[in-house]
Amino acid sequence: MLNTFVGKKSLQMGLDGMKVCKFGGTSVASAQQIMKVAGLISSDRSRRIIVVSAPGKRNPEDTKVTDLLIRLADAALDGKDTGRHLGEVVGRFRSIADELGLAAGFAESVERDLLERLRADRPDAGRFLDLMKAAGEDNNARLVAAYLNQIGVDAVYMSPRDAGLIVEGPAGDGMADAACYERLAGLKEDPRVIVFPGFFGYTKDGILCTFGRGGSDITGAILAAATGADLYENFTDVDGVFAANPNVVDRPALIGKMTYREMRELAYNGFNVLHDESLMPAFLKSVPVNIRNTNNPSAPGTLIVKERNCKTQPVIGIAADSGFSTLFVDKYLMNREIGFGRRLLGILEDENISFEHTPSGIDNMSVIIRNKFLTPEKEERILRRCYEELKVDHAHLNSDYSMIVLVGEAMRHTKGLAARAAMALAGSGTNIEMINQGSSEVSIVFGVHKADEKKALRAVYNEFFVPIAVSSV
Amino acid sequence: MLNTFVGKKSLQMGLDGMKVCKFGGTSVASAQQIMKVAGLISSDRSRRIIVVSAPGKRNPEDTKVTDLLIRLADAALDGKDTGRHLGEVVGRFRSIADELGLAAGFAESVERDLLERLRADRPDAGRFLDLMKAAGEDNNARLVAAYLNQIGVDAVYMSPRDAGLIVEGPAGDGMADAACYERLAGLKEDPRVIVFPGFFGYTKDGILCTFGRGGSDITGAILAAATGADLYENFTDVDGVFAANPNVVDRPALIGKMTYREMRELAYNGFNVLHDESLMPAFLKSVPVNIRNTNNPSAPGTLIVKERNCKTQPVIGIAADSGFSTLFVDKYLMNREIGFGRRLLGILEDENISFEHTPSGIDNMSVIIRNKFLTPEKEERILRRCYEELKVDHAHLNSDYSMIVLVGEAMRHTKGLAARAAMALAGSGTNIEMINQGSSEVSIVFGVHKADEKKALRAVYNEFFVPIAVSSV
Repeated sequence: MLNTFVGKKSLQMGLDGMKVCKFGGTSVASAQQIMKVAGLISSDRSRRIIVVSAPGKRNPEDTKVTDLLIRLADAALDGKDTGRHLGEVVGRFRSIADELGLAAGFAESVERDLLERLRADRPDAGRFLDLMKAAGEDNNARLVAAYLNQIGVDAVYMSPRDAGLIVEGPAGDGMADAACYERLAGLKEDPRVIVFPGFFGYTKDGILCTFGRGGSDITGAILAAATGADLYENFTDVDGVFAANPNVVDRPALIGKMTYREMRELAYNGFNVLHDESLMPAFLKSVPVNIRNTNNPSAPGTLIVKERNCKTQPVIGIAADSGFSTLFVDKYLMNREIGFGRRLLGILEDENISFEHTPSGIDNMSVIIRNKFLTPEKEERILRRCYEELKVDHAHLNSDYSMIVLVGEAMRHTKGLAARAAMALAGSGTNIEMINQGSSEVSIVFGVHKADEKKALRAVYNEFFVPIAVSSV
Repeated sequence: MLNTFVGKKSLQMGLDGMKVCKFGGTSVASAQQIMKVAGLISSDRSRRIIVVSAPGKRNPEDTKVTDLLIRLADAALDGKDTGRHLGEVVGRFRSIADELGLAAGFAESVERDLLERLRADRPDAGRFLDLMKAAGEDNNARLVAAYLNQIGVDAVYMSPRDAGLIVEGPAGDGMADAACYERLAGLKEDPRVIVFPGFFGYTKDGILCTFGRGGSDITGAILAAATGADLYENFTDVDGVFAANPNVVDRPALIGKMTYREMRELAYNGFNVLHDESLMPAFLKSVPVNIRNTNNPSAPGTLIVKERNCKTQPVIGIAADSGFSTLFVDKYLMNREIGFGRRLLGILEDENISFEHTPSGIDNMSVIIRNKFLTPEKEERILRRCYEELKVDHAHLNSDYSMIVLVGEAMRHTKGLAARAAMALAGSGTNIEMINQGSSEVSIVFGVHKADEKKALRAVYNEFFVPIAVSSV
């Protein structure tokens, strides 16, 4: 059931359709990997726009080119010697280019590019860091285009500047300007294979600006949306999205097909295959997204679509995420005090803290917050204001919470689902600290102690994904 | 287990202890009932302070004296003839007094009292209504005191004015002034049985002011607290508090002992034996409360205490209450918008609406509100402001919600409890619309459709209160 993902649309596509393909860091980490990528491109003429990341890790102990570039940038900013770091980056590109048999001058062109970036004006450190980091994707796109040409594919490197990918926002956290979609649409008219560097664009003033988390995914999603692609293929190093964290659950099921909302909910709650908002541009234009494995191209991967038949599988995936705190306050007759909840949330807002859940009782209220938003100083101020301004009887913060999130379309309308999950948690000896169900159509959240997180995830997974042996007479 | 309520304290009390007893409307509705009450008082010398309601209904079709008095007051305010209404009230007291064999002049003294009240200045209608309504309790206290004297009990009517029960607040919604407790403490030194009218006190300026809902219960609780009574006996016409609504669940268990918190939670969520805050003065001074049946005095009733052993019974009672609405809003990337929740609650606050629960998802938030707080105009304003000010994608209100509330101390720390409840609901074919668990120590709330309320209550009740037949080999 899980793997019957191939929808009619993708079967019909063939040569007439148009795909935007993004290849992540490990897919372009070495000459061997890039040869696989080139094979995938040359074997399917519908793969017309290719977005590439910087070369990633070749093995778990390796260092990503982006990290080498950050070291180089830091050394430059600190006024230290940059030669060794520069050499490492150039060396990575040289070894790939050599192995691919590219023209001898390629590594030198990377070195010239890096030196030019190092010599650029540095009005602020953030913009400089963006400029240096983006060199990984930029040079890698040039490299992949050169290799495609060498094997006879009519490919061209496309600069985000020339294509008109306008990005606004602070350094390291850019957002594509809505107006750029129209300009980028023209890329689909180009008969060549376009190789586009991921991760960055340029401001209206021509200053390079990178996206936040999931940068190259965002570039691919923007191009897929702008060109109205039939499919956005997102190539990674896994066969797709698993229904639960494979580091905790033994051989979890692969998700064949899920909706955008399910993907977003899983990503938000800790699935790290994708960043929760990076694919949004594609979703907004209803371009289906296919998460695939460069190293196992025959696997169909995970297809992310607008709608799916949910009757056969109400739970599509189960996320588990630690790192939550609970702010608990109680005050006798709180329920009579109109405005109490608003004022409590206002105190958190003053600290620039967003909240996840707010379970409440007659005389008490809890607010679940991600630990990353808290500091000892903020905690002290929040608790003090609860006593001084809200006149609470008690207030305290606990920081050992984990959330188990069941995700699936139509979850709310499937009877008995919360019961089965709660029963599974109880059976595993996990105490349910919190349940949040009732607003989201696609998720049920269980708060548990961090110490129980793994056994809780395994128990819920087994309830919904492992066939139960039924004894027969 | 349920009926082993008699704690050490109440056993030790006997003649040395001191009880405040409150008799509700049906307990003093007729001569026969007042004779029962007198028997209870004369048989236990520790019953030293007696709070009485106005005569209540003698049968389901009867009219309470308080309602007769409201009709009388309304007629007077409308400038209509008051004779007939006056006659009805006097007639009720006359029939009771005659049957008890009280001196012939008692009914006339009631008539003189009512005429005096009708002639009083009427600076505002609310205060006048309070003055008239209170005549039921006031004259009944005089009547009960007279009857006790007649049967040889040294009893005395005590006016709240003479006792110093100072009440502040608007007409019909007074609150006892904290300073009056010290004055009222002196009542315990009186060797006589004190008969005190419930439901009202006087402002510092000597104006009569009634309490809100649960008025006579409040008077009893204040006197029990002020005198440091060993027990506050609250006599009603039921054997105690049932674990679920007997109109829905067949012969529900009687709660033998529960804590204040459990009582408050059940009362807040729809148990109508007691008003959720009326007993609070007694609780704050740790005076145990015993809900008993005037018509079945051998039944031990329900004892409400500060602490109980919760291991044997994690769920003490299950409330079900209809009349809730859900305000649902969704907005893409709501989770990134710090302050959204606060602003939504602020809109409700502007309409003077308090909220019950606020389940939330990444991009959506629901607020559960009691229907009584809503009007079509308020709903329209709230929805409009959600769109205009919060720029939500969707906002709507549903008004067909019911809440099933499981109550019990240590509920949160009993593993598997939420699971059992959810399983029972699922088994009954009820869809769980909302779950709120995680802040209150003593309750878990399930939101269900109003149409499912009764079957949901029965299912959960049967899960926790009916012994399960276990098949053995």
